[in-house]
Amino acid sequence: MSEYSVVGKRIPRTDSVPRVTGEAKYSADLSLPGMLYAKVLRSPYAHAKILNIDTSKAERLPGVRAIITGKDAIPYKWGVFAYTRDMQLLPSDKVRYFGEEVAAVAAIDEDIAREALDLIQVDFEPLPWVLDAEEALLEGAPQIHQDKPGNISVRIFVDEGEVDRALEESYLVQEDRFSSPEENYCQLEPYAVLANFDSTGLDIWCPNAGPHMKARPLSNALGIPTSEVRVRKITIGGHGGGRSEVSPADFMAALLSRKARRPVKLVYTREENFNCVRQVHAATTHSRVGVDREGRITAVDMKVIMDGGAYASTGPIAASVAYIMIEEAYKFANFRYEAIRAYTNKPPRGMYPHHPRTAYGGLELQLDVLAEKLGMDPLELRIKNAVYEGYVTPTKTVITSCAEVETMIKAAEKAGWKEKRGALPPGRGIGMGVGSVISGFPMGIRGGSGAFVRFNEDGDATVISGVVDNGQGNDSMIAQIAAEELGLSVDKIKVVTADTSMTPADQGAYSQASTVMSGGAVKAAAADAKNQLLQVAAEMLEANPKDLVARDGRIYAKGSPDRFLDIAKVARTALSRDHAILGRGDRWPSADAKREWVKNPRGQVASAFSFGTAVAEVEVDRETGRVKLLNMVAAHDCGYPINPLAVEQQIQRSALEAGPEGTLLEKHAWTANGQNLNANFLDYWFPLSTDVPNIDPIIVTSNDPFGPFGAKEGGLSISVAMVGAVANAVQNAIGVTPKQLPITPEVVLRLLEEKEKQSEAKS
Amino acid sequence: MSEYSVVGKRIPRTDSVPRVTGEAKYSADLSLPGMLYAKVLRSPYAHAKILNIDTSKAERLPGVRAIITGKDAIPYKWGVFAYTRDMQLLPSDKVRYFGEEVAAVAAIDEDIAREALDLIQVDFEPLPWVLDAEEALLEGAPQIHQDKPGNISVRIFVDEGEVDRALEESYLVQEDRFSSPEENYCQLEPYAVLANFDSTGLDIWCPNAGPHMKARPLSNALGIPTSEVRVRKITIGGHGGGRSEVSPADFMAALLSRKARRPVKLVYTREENFNCVRQVHAATTHSRVGVDREGRITAVDMKVIMDGGAYASTGPIAASVAYIMIEEAYKFANFRYEAIRAYTNKPPRGMYPHHPRTAYGGLELQLDVLAEKLGMDPLELRIKNAVYEGYVTPTKTVITSCAEVETMIKAAEKAGWKEKRGALPPGRGIGMGVGSVISGFPMGIRGGSGAFVRFNEDGDATVISGVVDNGQGNDSMIAQIAAEELGLSVDKIKVVTADTSMTPADQGAYSQASTVMSGGAVKAAAADAKNQLLQVAAEMLEANPKDLVARDGRIYAKGSPDRFLDIAKVARTALSRDHAILGRGDRWPSADAKREWVKNPRGQVASAFSFGTAVAEVEVDRETGRVKLLNMVAAHDCGYPINPLAVEQQIQRSALEAGPEGTLLEKHAWTANGQNLNANFLDYWFPLSTDVPNIDPIIVTSNDPFGPFGAKEGGLSISVAMVGAVANAVQNAIGVTPKQLPITPEVVLRLLEEKEKQSEAKS
Repeated sequence: MSEYSVVGKRIPRTDSVPRVTGEAKYSADLSLPGMLYAKVLRSPYAHAKILNIDTSKAERLPGVRAIITGKDAIPYKWGVFAYTRDMQLLPSDKVRYFGEEVAAVAAIDEDIAREALDLIQVDFEPLPWVLDAEEALLEGAPQIHQDKPGNISVRIFVDEGEVDRALEESYLVQEDRFSSPEENYCQLEPYAVLANFDSTGLDIWCPNAGPHMKARPLSNALGIPTSEVRVRKITIGGHGGGRSEVSPADFMAALLSRKARRPVKLVYTREENFNCVRQVHAATTHSRVGVDREGRITAVDMKVIMDGGAYASTGPIAASVAYIMIEEAYKFANFRYEAIRAYTNKPPRGMYPHHPRTAYGGLELQLDVLAEKLGMDPLELRIKNAVYEGYVTPTKTVITSCAEVETMIKAAEKAGWKEKRGALPPGRGIGMGVGSVISGFPMGIRGGSGAFVRFNEDGDATVISGVVDNGQGNDSMIAQIAAEELGLSVDKIKVVTADTSMTPADQGAYSQASTVMSGGAVKAAAADAKNQLLQVAAEMLEANPKDLVARDGRIYAKGSPDRFLDIAKVARTALSRDHAILGRGDRWPSADAKREWVKNPRGQVASAFSFGTAVAEVEVDRETGRVKLLNMVAAHDCGYPINPLAVEQQIQRSALEAGPEGTLLEKHAWTANGQNLNANFLDYWFPLSTDVPNIDPIIVTSNDPFGPFGAKEGGLSISVAMVGAVANAVQNAIGVTPKQLPITPEVVLRLLEEKEKQSEAKS
Repeated sequence: MSEYSVVGKRIPRTDSVPRVTGEAKYSADLSLPGMLYAKVLRSPYAHAKILNIDTSKAERLPGVRAIITGKDAIPYKWGVFAYTRDMQLLPSDKVRYFGEEVAAVAAIDEDIAREALDLIQVDFEPLPWVLDAEEALLEGAPQIHQDKPGNISVRIFVDEGEVDRALEESYLVQEDRFSSPEENYCQLEPYAVLANFDSTGLDIWCPNAGPHMKARPLSNALGIPTSEVRVRKITIGGHGGGRSEVSPADFMAALLSRKARRPVKLVYTREENFNCVRQVHAATTHSRVGVDREGRITAVDMKVIMDGGAYASTGPIAASVAYIMIEEAYKFANFRYEAIRAYTNKPPRGMYPHHPRTAYGGLELQLDVLAEKLGMDPLELRIKNAVYEGYVTPTKTVITSCAEVETMIKAAEKAGWKEKRGALPPGRGIGMGVGSVISGFPMGIRGGSGAFVRFNEDGDATVISGVVDNGQGNDSMIAQIAAEELGLSVDKIKVVTADTSMTPADQGAYSQASTVMSGGAVKAAAADAKNQLLQVAAEMLEANPKDLVARDGRIYAKGSPDRFLDIAKVARTALSRDHAILGRGDRWPSADAKREWVKNPRGQVASAFSFGTAVAEVEVDRETGRVKLLNMVAAHDCGYPINPLAVEQQIQRSALEAGPEGTLLEKHAWTANGQNLNANFLDYWFPLSTDVPNIDPIIVTSNDPFGPFGAKEGGLSISVAMVGAVANAVQNAIGVTPKQLPITPEVVLRLLEEKEKQSEAKS
């Protein structure tokens, strides 16, 4: 008999049917009696003072019910930390990017709302603007925020060991500059909010990763207690990090509803959803890495400049993840990392759980170059530098479980690495990348997850959790965890999630924490309920509750599975004995680097760490420059797979997102005055199914001491690893290092041209 | 310093604002995307076989999305007990009353749905019918249910002591027959349901007294687990007992939604809301009561016949409450009570928490007659027969707390009883009545209430309870209880109630149990949360948690209120120490008469008992027969008033309902073929504000050991007591016993005529 009955089993996700049949409702589908429709007036300048807004004409338009401008906002600025509070959710002083919110209208239909926008008269005073991060950091650049001299939004600095001496003493040092552009999250569901502000407070539905986290800034911005903000679960059509934060759309819909005393729905257009929501940072990375004669990494010295756009957003976290991921992926004692996130007059860039690609992707390219120079197989070099369980990083994070080497070996085996590397026909290449990501991040007093578990009279159970499911399968995951802990089958578990008025607070589906945090809380609450049930069963069986187990719908004494009670019977007996079985539990990250970690990044930064290795095979068309992905293999150490099917889907999703999307296709372009040139799915390159090759997902297990049933996050290390794999495959195919992402046909042609020139120069 | 900071204070109810501003939404106000509208085809016969239903024409009408008939229902019959399951929620064999459901249509608008009804062809075979309970019990009467010979729906029989001998040995025996007609609940909100049946189960909003209790029959009728029925809180415009049960409307809306795969809304017309929902039983009572020379009651012998209409409904409970109330109100050792609830071809009669009026109202009239014969003041006679704390009734129920005598004295004082009784001018009268009702009824495995309490990061708390508020102030009541227990002010308590998918099971707002059961559960859950908080505070204060108290927003050691911590600070410290404060608790009735009590009515029938005395003053116009109410005084023993303002409102409401409504005005009338003649507010007599005199509410306290803070129910004893008070005032004014309710002008004129004839005959 296997250790577990429910977890570790491949099951169809419990949320699949409503999504497939179309019965699942998204925010834009909702309606409330008396609901109004909102539209937003946006800035036609990248940078301008707002001198005056005259809404009087618009107010007189029949059907208009409320108009708001920055004057209706209380002086509150949003930011994840005190020092990054720079964004008034509807600005009143000036606009800082092309498309920023200036005013919003609620009317009885969308046409009238749109018409009203044209009647609002805004006097702007255009200001000089800057669209490039490095330029923004130069002296004399236009100042975007009064109190942020030099346009520095965030600076992260880590300096451990003796980096300069170590590099000096290294056998080889590789130094490069890598760059990557803005990417879009491309959620297929446009951002939409339904808000109803009444005497009891705010009721709001919107796509987001953490309702409980969203309630706080909304309560601050509206000047009401957190408990008067009710953020509800709703089906979500994509997140990817871009829906981590409170959105001006949430605030505007809420404020319009408060003013109009009616429910208000605001649905972003596709263009707004490309331009006026968070985007992924552009970045450059200057990286030096040293190795000794045996290929051991001696030191890493990295400087990252990120284009943060007009506001800080979750910048401190976005600017930090690179150093954490690099530290976790390979062992080396000397590490310097500096990240500067600059303000520019572009839309604010948000959270991406594995960014910038130029940091870790660049490092992976450099490792292959060094391996080549050392005459080593890149796999061998990576195995030599892999971390292990119990390893302590330079900044004193302990790796709690680790099967990194196993992911390297299994991915290489499946991809035919040994047979293919160096043996492929001209124009083809195979490359490898490695990645590590965190699970369960320190987030202060909002960093814990709680859960309730309720036994019902039919003998089934209800799990009440504040976590949301952005599409990754969280609902299904917590159902499996509860079922295993309670000894029930999954169909006996009802999951109810994310209504901030009822569900215990939850840290949100951020930072790959859902399984370890929300799942852990559910496990604890289920254990609490189970223990109460076992007490009743013990009376019925005349046994010691400590000797009893609940499994497969039954309760019995260990070793005596034949003398059992049905759980449903025990649950009903409990009720007949005047005992309502209600469980509660919570889970907090085992991270001692709380709160202070950004300013003083030392200590345990996360509760668990996952590892992955990707191998990609490409064919490069030397005529057109086009890179065709032939195959992707991805092995991921997820600790323990709660649902192997879901983990495989997550591995595939990560491979897709990092490979064809991130490494080969996606980028935003801008006009000289800061207008987004490709804010639509026609001009923005996004992979079609024909761009995606076979993806082989491989699950590797370790057994994490923190995660429920040993689980960690399920697949994201591949989003890191696959960048290096694809980039290295291209490097392998063409013999030149692609230092610019995405590796578009133009980039490849230019690289080939440069290479030709160099060999011509040499000859 | 008073014992309590929050409970016992007069506060405006926390739910008042949304009701007053109109922002509160009722079921009929709701809409869902893609929603359809339903209409119901009803029987034009009081009793008929359904031979065939042809829906084909209606189905072809454009815009019609689903039609259901009894054939779509699974063979499930609803009833509160196994032996009363007689009602298929949409009948397939025959109809049993004029207006019963035959088919229902869901269409894209109401007009089309109504048009479709006309296209449904039903072949009926009319059957003989019976409209009177006593006739229905005669041999040869039409059989309404195959398996219920003699049309006996329910029979309750209690026989304690030696009734016949005691009556024989009595000094005086009074014997009468009283009758009362059907009344309507007259909820101002017509019944309305919104149902959405999808792959996850049923979501339903409807006015009802117990969402958790409603989920079960709906799950049975639909053949799905209880946990797949989600009944939600919604503002409710009146209940009064009539919304205790599952309604055919709920079932039809759910079934239509399942068939159409779209949300369906069904809103009853005013006529349907008068005729096709539950009504209050008509009844006759034959009562014999004996007293000794000193006016002590020796025995009560009562036979009640109730007209139950076509189905059992909650008949067993409705037929039992009279004996419980009579037993509780006065002490006497010998008691025989028989109630027969007969089936008739009228709409089914439902729960009324204090019925039939003819039982207790009749007894009160008889006591006044006996007092007169004994030459005693009716007040004196009542004091002599009052029960007391610790008293054990003939059927072995213990009175746990009691201030009955105090209610008598205070009501009499306030009403000027001593000065007025016997001293009023001709045509005027003053009368007294006494009543007792239960709190916290035994209801089996669904008889408990649970609650969760969650501390929030702002330091306020959320109460999660399954109870609903039908208008009586339950939300406000549990907020006060939680606030007191947690040491917070009421504005720091958020109340979230009644969503069966999330809230702990609750026995419902039935049987005056909300305060003792739901309130008790909330108190227990709050105590659980508070104890966790005190643990954290104890660490902070370096104190023993047992020595700490939480009060007025602070935590401090008993006796050292100056060395305190703000609760909000402790709550945040708990979070910063990785502790989510989540509390859970439950409460069950302290009643040993569970489940079996109807068949074998012995033992503790309720957890607590409240008592009340009413005094009414009337003026009778001997020309027109009109009774004008001049004044009402009502003193109620509520144990402890959680919110005195709310208790006074409940006392006034009860006085209104029993006095002008029940005793003087309300009755239904029928055509010979069973059609309701006055199913509207024009023809049905309902008091206007001009019919209502001053009402003086008086709160009397006892201290119940079961209820939270000593509380019991808040006002309903007056619904019992006021019937006797008004009827006795009329008796006092005209010198004849009014044996027929309501005491309409015709009744008074007939009584006066009879009296005249009798005195003529005598002279």
